[in-house]
Amino acid sequence: MSVANLRNQVLQIIRAGIAAVDPYRLVKEQVKPEKGNLCLPNGEIFRLDACDRVFIFGAGKGAVPMAVSLRELLGDKFSGGVVITKYGHAAISGMKNPKENPSLQIFEASHPLPDEKGLQATRVLLDCCQELTEKDLAFVVITGGGSALMEYLPQGISLADLQQLNQILLESGAGIHQINTIRKHISLIKGGQLARAIAPAACVSLILSDVIGDRLSVIASGPTAPDESTFQDAMELLEQLGIRERIPANIANYLQAGLNGKIPETPKAGDPIFNNVSNTILGNIRLCLKRAAQEAEKLGYNPVILTSRLHGEAREVAGVLADIVREVLQNDEPVKKPACLLTGGETTVHIKGSGKGGRNQELALAFALNDIQSDFCFASCGTDGTDGPTNAAGAVVDTQTPTRAKTKGLDARTYLKNNDAWHFFKALDDLIITGPTGTNVMDMQVALIP
Amino acid sequence: MSVANLRNQVLQIIRAGIAAVDPYRLVKEQVKPEKGNLCLPNGEIFRLDACDRVFIFGAGKGAVPMAVSLRELLGDKFSGGVVITKYGHAAISGMKNPKENPSLQIFEASHPLPDEKGLQATRVLLDCCQELTEKDLAFVVITGGGSALMEYLPQGISLADLQQLNQILLESGAGIHQINTIRKHISLIKGGQLARAIAPAACVSLILSDVIGDRLSVIASGPTAPDESTFQDAMELLEQLGIRERIPANIANYLQAGLNGKIPETPKAGDPIFNNVSNTILGNIRLCLKRAAQEAEKLGYNPVILTSRLHGEAREVAGVLADIVREVLQNDEPVKKPACLLTGGETTVHIKGSGKGGRNQELALAFALNDIQSDFCFASCGTDGTDGPTNAAGAVVDTQTPTRAKTKGLDARTYLKNNDAWHFFKALDDLIITGPTGTNVMDMQVALIP
Repeated sequence: MSVANLRNQVLQIIRAGIAAVDPYRLVKEQVKPEKGNLCLPNGEIFRLDACDRVFIFGAGKGAVPMAVSLRELLGDKFSGGVVITKYGHAAISGMKNPKENPSLQIFEASHPLPDEKGLQATRVLLDCCQELTEKDLAFVVITGGGSALMEYLPQGISLADLQQLNQILLESGAGIHQINTIRKHISLIKGGQLARAIAPAACVSLILSDVIGDRLSVIASGPTAPDESTFQDAMELLEQLGIRERIPANIANYLQAGLNGKIPETPKAGDPIFNNVSNTILGNIRLCLKRAAQEAEKLGYNPVILTSRLHGEAREVAGVLADIVREVLQNDEPVKKPACLLTGGETTVHIKGSGKGGRNQELALAFALNDIQSDFCFASCGTDGTDGPTNAAGAVVDTQTPTRAKTKGLDARTYLKNNDAWHFFKALDDLIITGPTGTNVMDMQVALIP
Repeated sequence: MSVANLRNQVLQIIRAGIAAVDPYRLVKEQVKPEKGNLCLPNGEIFRLDACDRVFIFGAGKGAVPMAVSLRELLGDKFSGGVVITKYGHAAISGMKNPKENPSLQIFEASHPLPDEKGLQATRVLLDCCQELTEKDLAFVVITGGGSALMEYLPQGISLADLQQLNQILLESGAGIHQINTIRKHISLIKGGQLARAIAPAACVSLILSDVIGDRLSVIASGPTAPDESTFQDAMELLEQLGIRERIPANIANYLQAGLNGKIPETPKAGDPIFNNVSNTILGNIRLCLKRAAQEAEKLGYNPVILTSRLHGEAREVAGVLADIVREVLQNDEPVKKPACLLTGGETTVHIKGSGKGGRNQELALAFALNDIQSDFCFASCGTDGTDGPTNAAGAVVDTQTPTRAKTKGLDARTYLKNNDAWHFFKALDDLIITGPTGTNVMDMQVALIP
């Protein structure tokens, strides 16, 4: 097998995985129309004929194609809806300004930092929810990015306040779960509050997960899922992080009012609201990896999914993956050659240098440094087509990478030290460039050992 | 399966792995006497009857039991020998002061830092080599630690010089391979030079590997293996590390003399010396893991060896292993439950705190922080019975570890931050304490998922 062929196969396997979690296709494949009903993969059946009206709401980078796909299934039963996506992402699906009646209103807004456009669009969405009755049904399509794109703030808290809070939280070293606990409690839509807005109509959420473990309360900050955190948690975190006095007074006062019981808590598990709510994960990194594994098998490889929950510092994770690739090469374990090792998840990069890159490119560069001498090909790739602030989705390395780098005078160690994987792989023409894929289920890694 | 049972099984699997690489047993099982010959596992046969005399040399923490085992096989053909081990390690094997004729001289010396005792013992060993003829056969037993224990310096370089060099190398941030390149070139026994001393007698090295990848030139600094490095490499490294001017002048001058061709290079691959040299790895971490896997299978688990080359920062490695355990729990991949995941190798800890611990205890503590809620048991353990500067070999964690820690008021994160895993596990009574095992093939990790 030539090196070029091996690379083509790796890319083919990655493409197959990404295609399996295409939001448009996911809805078509998993939501089945049947005699005026819609059947979900978990066996739930929704009798469209019994509903007065059926709406579609939602937000996320892949929300528009999900909504479009769903609207096609709904046909005449579709009564309207509001979906918010990232700038440029409505255009990807060819749905920027649909002229139709009833209309699916599509808004574009800022991600990862929310902007006024997002707040305004969310206002439209919530206004639309107000007219729902118990005879209506609301589908909610949720994908990664929904947390920033779909946001509505209480009276008296401004976007500038929120931005300042975000900045202080990031500087304080707070983890993503801590940040979300606080943000859910100054939002009027996160943490199950969209489900509350939709009630008494039935709420059916179709979700593309971009988080490890697929926790409903975490994906897009869980707009239709029971919240596990409280105003008290939020206040305690502010104390713990030592930022109680530094955050905008409007926000501190609002949280204090919540703690005093003057503002309703986010809805919790057991709240009757959720009797009429269904949350279904249509796609995640695991589905992506399973389909990629099938493609590898078709190509003659023994596929193994090692984990769909990969986390940790990218360069360290790369070392462990290389250790396993070496074991396959030398001892045919944990799987016999020709083998395809698959992992998925989301690694982290603690940036110390001033270079250009992303976690997938950094992981690939660190993998190359393990200098495996036998034939292999390895790639790490963001399923959304974007890795860090670059035009690449990831990068591919193989046995010849170190030699080719040497020939071009590129010292891999220096590039890694400077977090500059993009320039390294750019010079080698080894970036994976897909453009936006329209989906996002975190990252995948594929290692082929022929 | 109760938690206690699960723990007992993990420990049973670890014990089985360690027992498989017991140096005494390894020689007995793999070196077969047959009609006056000795047969090695690779098929090589040594005709003892054709030899005038048969000697045993060697060094390492497990060298004495290997030598004793071999001497028993040799019977009347044994003509003498010299073996150097770490302080206290001759006593472990009950062989501190054997009174017999011909004698196997056993010396104890300092490890990991060499001392005068080690240099003196090595002098005795090299003197003994001088009388060897082409009709003699010399077995060399090599285990981890041999590099510090078996050392002889050129005229004019003192132990103090070597110690100063070591200190400067460590401070310079040099890697172990860089350090070894330099040290081999101021040694008269490392880097194949023991094989040169033994020639023209035949040299048969029996090796217990304590390094990832089992490279002969790396284990105990490869006393009977072709050296891949040169005086020029050593000098270039000094420049590269910027320590050329800081190291003792005696050493710099010696290396410069070597570079000028005034001192023989270490013997290289292709040197006729090696025509009469055989190097055989009798045991390594992989053998340990294979035997552990068999034990797990006996207990009803599906065993998988993920890698025998695990490396990286202990806490990061722990995260990836936890990711794979979770995948087994949730999706029966990469192996079906009941499953046993096995890894081996040597991780690293970059110490930032002031606590007490070792890489295995730190790995186990970081694993516990992943807070896996379903039933599992995980242990990380040094096969030599010693993990860092502690009395423990490692530690064991399971589903209840976080709860039990909380009950005792132990915050795992704080202990990890302070590199203080020993006190954490001590308080929970979850240290693995074996005492010195008499062997060393790095570390092993066992995860049971019932």
